Amino acid sequence: MADTEARGLYLDDLHVGDSYRTADYVVSEPAILAFGAQFDPQVFHLDAEAATGTFFGGLAASGWHTAAITMNLLVTSGLPFADGLIGAGAELSWPTATRPGDVLHAEAAITQITPSRSRPDRGIVTVESRTLTADGEERQRLVACMVVFRRDATLTPR
Amino acid sequence: MADTEARGLYLDDLHVGDSYRTADYVVSEPAILAFGAQFDPQVFHLDAEAATGTFFGGLAASGWHTAAITMNLLVTSGLPFADGLIGAGAELSWPTATRPGDVLHAEAAITQITPSRSRPDRGIVTVESRTLTADGEERQRLVACMVVFRRDATLTPR
Repeated sequence: MADTEARGLYLDDLHVGDSYRTADYVVSEPAILAFGAQFDPQVFHLDAEAATGTFFGGLAASGWHTAAITMNLLVTSGLPFADGLIGAGAELSWPTATRPGDVLHAEAAITQITPSRSRPDRGIVTVESRTLTADGEERQRLVACMVVFRRDATLTPR
Repeated sequence: MADTEARGLYLDDLHVGDSYRTADYVVSEPAILAFGAQFDPQVFHLDAEAATGTFFGGLAASGWHTAAITMNLLVTSGLPFADGLIGAGAELSWPTATRPGDVLHAEAAITQITPSRSRPDRGIVTVESRTLTADGEERQRLVACMVVFRRDATLTPR
């Protein structure tokens, strides 16, 4: 969080159209298998050979793994919100599956900013993000609604 | 996948209103910290003491961790689709954050079944799922669109 804090932006600082490009993230086969074993134990996420006979035609990352990698990218090199990335909700789709060896990055843009009527210290910021391979193949689309605070907000637990 | 295959249901077998209740899943503090370190490295997912000064007022699981746990539950004890749980997209919200010690389960129901017009061997099944604590606190709402095949489909890579 140190980096986020150093660059930290508040609701007051954001504008519709602001855009961000994250660093790259290499997706390894062991990482796909480990995530699959822990969270999505289906043959197409667990066994490269057996996966050839499935819908995916080979080993594929869980969509939730792609989502988690995207969050890592947005947190560590994407969206520099001062109080962190706090999601209220999200819409996801996975046009294609992440594969071993993919080098992913995310491109994100702020598409809407809605100040809270009931809580003037914060707003909801809509961020649209695409997770892409080095070849531009789209692995995930994400529309996330995030809680972002004003510079003078006093953070208190909800 | 053996259990899923043994109980496997095809598109032909499903009806709107079919509902499922998963087993329980205990969320430990080390698991929250490990997921945070790997995928969502923000102070409120990494450090119980420092998290007291944040929006969450204490250590909270990443929403993507809650999503991944929910997928684990749906795969291992929830939705017995014969060819696996293949997500095309999803809508998520996190009414409250998952906390250390939570015992989560998911309650899921089929709310829509749309046979594919272009590919008669499959359809899109909409599943609405709530992830709940033992006390009935709602940690996640999920509306997932899944690809489900008919009994006589021949699976070929897309």
